[in-house]
Amino acid sequence: MKKILEYVSSIDPVDMSMDDVVQKRLDSLTKPPGSLGRLEEIVKELVRITGQDPSKTPPKIESKIIFIMAADHGIAREGVSAFPAEVTPQMVYNFLSGGAAINVLARFSGCETKVVDMGVNHVFENAENLINKKVCMGSKNFAEEPAMTEEELAKALNAGIELAENAATLQGGVDIIGTGDMGIANTTPSTALFCALLGFSPEEITGPGTGLDQNGVNRKAQVIAKALDKHSPFDSPFDALMKVGGFEIAGLTGLILGAAKRRVPVVVDGFISTAAAVVAIKAQPNVREKLFFAHTSQERGHAAVIEKLGVKPIVDLGMRLGEGTGAAIAIPIIEAAVKIYNEMATFESAGVSEEL
Amino acid sequence: MKKILEYVSSIDPVDMSMDDVVQKRLDSLTKPPGSLGRLEEIVKELVRITGQDPSKTPPKIESKIIFIMAADHGIAREGVSAFPAEVTPQMVYNFLSGGAAINVLARFSGCETKVVDMGVNHVFENAENLINKKVCMGSKNFAEEPAMTEEELAKALNAGIELAENAATLQGGVDIIGTGDMGIANTTPSTALFCALLGFSPEEITGPGTGLDQNGVNRKAQVIAKALDKHSPFDSPFDALMKVGGFEIAGLTGLILGAAKRRVPVVVDGFISTAAAVVAIKAQPNVREKLFFAHTSQERGHAAVIEKLGVKPIVDLGMRLGEGTGAAIAIPIIEAAVKIYNEMATFESAGVSEEL
Repeated sequence: MKKILEYVSSIDPVDMSMDDVVQKRLDSLTKPPGSLGRLEEIVKELVRITGQDPSKTPPKIESKIIFIMAADHGIAREGVSAFPAEVTPQMVYNFLSGGAAINVLARFSGCETKVVDMGVNHVFENAENLINKKVCMGSKNFAEEPAMTEEELAKALNAGIELAENAATLQGGVDIIGTGDMGIANTTPSTALFCALLGFSPEEITGPGTGLDQNGVNRKAQVIAKALDKHSPFDSPFDALMKVGGFEIAGLTGLILGAAKRRVPVVVDGFISTAAAVVAIKAQPNVREKLFFAHTSQERGHAAVIEKLGVKPIVDLGMRLGEGTGAAIAIPIIEAAVKIYNEMATFESAGVSEEL
Repeated sequence: MKKILEYVSSIDPVDMSMDDVVQKRLDSLTKPPGSLGRLEEIVKELVRITGQDPSKTPPKIESKIIFIMAADHGIAREGVSAFPAEVTPQMVYNFLSGGAAINVLARFSGCETKVVDMGVNHVFENAENLINKKVCMGSKNFAEEPAMTEEELAKALNAGIELAENAATLQGGVDIIGTGDMGIANTTPSTALFCALLGFSPEEITGPGTGLDQNGVNRKAQVIAKALDKHSPFDSPFDALMKVGGFEIAGLTGLILGAAKRRVPVVVDGFISTAAAVVAIKAQPNVREKLFFAHTSQERGHAAVIEKLGVKPIVDLGMRLGEGTGAAIAIPIIEAAVKIYNEMATFESAGVSEEL
């Protein structure tokens, strides 16, 4: 963990030195100043993340990749999910054969997808889009014991960091990384992390996940409350992640940290990915401004978490599926913003009169 | 106008007979029921509009067109815009050479664009993507007299209807129509129409348009209030459109009515397009469910109008440019929804276990 902590402390803040260059260009384009709203903000945020001078290296979103990290959860044995645990490996196969929602949306938005086995309770054969980073066959039941050991945590974080480092540097590097998740019961560790790191109570933010009824939600909140009692206080964000987290969440935390280090913008999907983002931000506040939040999830609690983080998701479409589906919807909007910046005519070039 | 009124009265309601077929298919896909939120609703709405049995004719969004209707406004002489009137034809040239925001976004989302001269104060040479439906050189100053005659109104409405009819029927027909607008000062007639048809006061909903300061906004609200006093009461939505509207708004009203008649879904852009939609809906309530509202415009008043209409825009990105830019951002989300419906694996086909 010591090396990881050093790595985390070396992540620098966003670079605002190009703000004026970006603003000047945006205001030269044939539109009333600021009239493209969030699209204009997105370009500014993107350039702050990459730190590149847009007059020399225009921003671009061409190479896009979504990592769908999958793992199983011992806490599923507490009956906190509407779906059986065997759905985790079944959905991994669905991702690999291209039939899941994320496959459809990623194809549509031109994003490559990679499925990462972080700790699924199933042994997969090698497959083209599957990356084997399996730490073990799933987390322990954190109602009874820590979800993972420190060694397992470090392995999971390093797996994510390595994926981000490779994505940033190999074959010219990607322009943007989306996060995705699969893991039956994983709203439970995510909710526990929001409580542990942001001060929510389980009653406030526990939701139905894939479809619990109100009794199920109440029981789930109790499971989380008991586990937090058992494991707190937490020494650090990583301590919470180790004790009440899960392997896909830890992998995504590493991915986010690695991308932030390498100045590659990350599009954080929904509830689960936000839990990973919260761990990363709490470990290194410089990370926050290097992330786009794709959408406000319909999953109860997400809106409150987003508000507490002080971030502004790109869309709100009532989605609550995970897998990276929100990221796949938001990435084209970021791409559109970049095209506006690069391709629009200026008042001067188009011979259009400016404001009176 | 008599023929137009007959045409309007013949527009039928959406067809809900396929709701069960659509819902059954959505619930068979490998995701918790309803977890794709608005994307699932969009498919239901789309099938209601087309009225086609999706098990025989799967919904599709392939051929996409945005009509950018342009016109000048006599009311501009009252100093209600931050930009000079000559910007209307200048921006038409910008559209034709591909440098405007709508060009960039339409290219990105694969939408064809057609610029329609409904009444610009400039004579254009023929150009590839320009459709000449010029009624005259611009509306009259409705601070002093009606914006147009009844004959001019009928001509403008018919132009829009004809464009929709042709788009629906020629060369296999388009799958979706986006609306766009250009016309210096056109938030003024749009605001006047919202007041006339939805009961708002000018003080409540008048905004800065392309960039008025607060004094300018106050003066604009006064201009609108005086004009409404002068021309009211209005006998009908079309009477209001004639007296305080404009030619691009009338053309868009016709386009919306024609598309509703032909069961082609329309994506209504922002403030100006919503004014056209309000006229169309007030003239024929069956139109409302045949429209998608692209976004909540940042222009003051739009959110209140949207709320009063009881509709739910797809995105909210703080945009306030018009031209169809909101439609160009929203259309890919509708397209993504259709791909989800058509391309996702079912629980059965993917061998994924259903809910416990």
